[in-house]
Amino acid sequence: MRFRTVRTDDGATRAEVRLGGEWYATTADDVGALVAGPGWRSAASFTKPIPEPTAAVGSAPVVTTPRKIICCGHNYRAHIVEMGRPEPEFPTLFAKFADTLTAWNADMVLPGPAESVMLDWEAELAIVVGAVLRHADRETARAGIAGYAVANDFSVRSWQRRTPQWLQGKAFDATTPLGPELVTADEIDPADGLRITCRVNGIEEQTGSTDDLVFDPATLLTYISEFTTLRPGDVVLTGTPGGVGIAAEPPRFLRAGDVVETEIEGIGLLRNRITEHEPSRSAYGW
Amino acid sequence: MRFRTVRTDDGATRAEVRLGGEWYATTADDVGALVAGPGWRSAASFTKPIPEPTAAVGSAPVVTTPRKIICCGHNYRAHIVEMGRPEPEFPTLFAKFADTLTAWNADMVLPGPAESVMLDWEAELAIVVGAVLRHADRETARAGIAGYAVANDFSVRSWQRRTPQWLQGKAFDATTPLGPELVTADEIDPADGLRITCRVNGIEEQTGSTDDLVFDPATLLTYISEFTTLRPGDVVLTGTPGGVGIAAEPPRFLRAGDVVETEIEGIGLLRNRITEHEPSRSAYGW
Repeated sequence: MRFRTVRTDDGATRAEVRLGGEWYATTADDVGALVAGPGWRSAASFTKPIPEPTAAVGSAPVVTTPRKIICCGHNYRAHIVEMGRPEPEFPTLFAKFADTLTAWNADMVLPGPAESVMLDWEAELAIVVGAVLRHADRETARAGIAGYAVANDFSVRSWQRRTPQWLQGKAFDATTPLGPELVTADEIDPADGLRITCRVNGIEEQTGSTDDLVFDPATLLTYISEFTTLRPGDVVLTGTPGGVGIAAEPPRFLRAGDVVETEIEGIGLLRNRITEHEPSRSAYGW
Repeated sequence: MRFRTVRTDDGATRAEVRLGGEWYATTADDVGALVAGPGWRSAASFTKPIPEPTAAVGSAPVVTTPRKIICCGHNYRAHIVEMGRPEPEFPTLFAKFADTLTAWNADMVLPGPAESVMLDWEAELAIVVGAVLRHADRETARAGIAGYAVANDFSVRSWQRRTPQWLQGKAFDATTPLGPELVTADEIDPADGLRITCRVNGIEEQTGSTDDLVFDPATLLTYISEFTTLRPGDVVLTGTPGGVGIAAEPPRFLRAGDVVETEIEGIGLLRNRITEHEPSRSAYGW
């Protein structure tokens, strides 16, 4: 099945389910709340009584308020080899906040002048957790995956490099589009090798395959659940393949007017336009 | 004023306020919810009608479910000088989760055998945010501080050192006691130089003064609010002074039976006993 979260005309959000080629409303506020409740694994839950097809008013991150967003760096094998690094023994993990998320088609407002911000792209496969996981073994972790979505871990490199810890460059409000839909884990498997790409103004900058992960989704959830509890609606980002702007020679960064398309075969496409820094605007909100 | 969060006999939590030497119930679930509502800055809010003194059933972190916990490393000037490091230009920031928090008197269950875990102490001054802060200037940030509490950023060094990012060593569930109380910012000012100490089995291991911070509370909130929105109940930890176990020669780490006391003059005292690893126990929950 496929789920999405839309913004409604009263300013709230609502989870929807795709059935028979049409989107139907659910009673959940977002896909995170949906997968925290009962019945979401069965299409039958959404057809009695049959809801009306709905027209979305606006877009929202597929999960709007996860308690945890945990991201893995250095995870595509081909990119690690290309950079001459050894294969890592442990996943490199960092966190984002719910405020960091934005919609699949949201404009990405530069948080400062483009040349000083150094805004870069990072196409990523996102896992949405569908069960409580603590000290989970691989099988439990695998069964606890609700599904997959596309993310772009847009990174403010100038801030990321200020200190050894990356948080401040990775957690600017509304800089991680997450969507457009959640594809449930029974329908798609990253181990089958889904093509992941990032295009900037139509030019392919990143490409990789989701079967090239050093730490695959079940391994990541198993590892994370050793130190913290994962819950339905939590989000794990799995790293980015080669081709980021900062690794180019010379480095290339995003400017106002650029359009970034992030796509994973069989899951979906994010399309985000970079817009000018607005010194007077509060940058918060999606 | 002073606020605390207690666990009630129905398994929920409740914020309380200290008035005239006695603790009184409030209608808020925790101090985070309390400072997100109106009226908490005035004692008069809690005396009409006069509530009954209450007996706490159990302890809880002073804020139980912050949306954001942001921590600063390398922030005590004396410790930086002692280590021969230059004074940092920017704060080194990383995140924790609400699940990382625990009560001021909670047992700290070793997440594995003591010798492989390398559990270390880090006494810290905690800021609880009391306003929405985004692109805040110093004065706004200062006025947006609800108050201060004591924290210990217990760190699992073996995991922290696995990768360049510290998250996995800093975010083990229930390893950051936060409390015992929130002292409001009108009653105490870290710039006055409050003595901060950490004692292990009665022996002083860390000592410092809260006027020795490279990045003081208002500066940290100003800086953080440049990339993300801070909200009432969010928590910022301000770093630890010299004397952590990993810096000792030879390094010293915590073992079952150790008692760690973390104290800040005028704010309060945490007392946490280290207990044996329980392989069969889910480590989650305070």
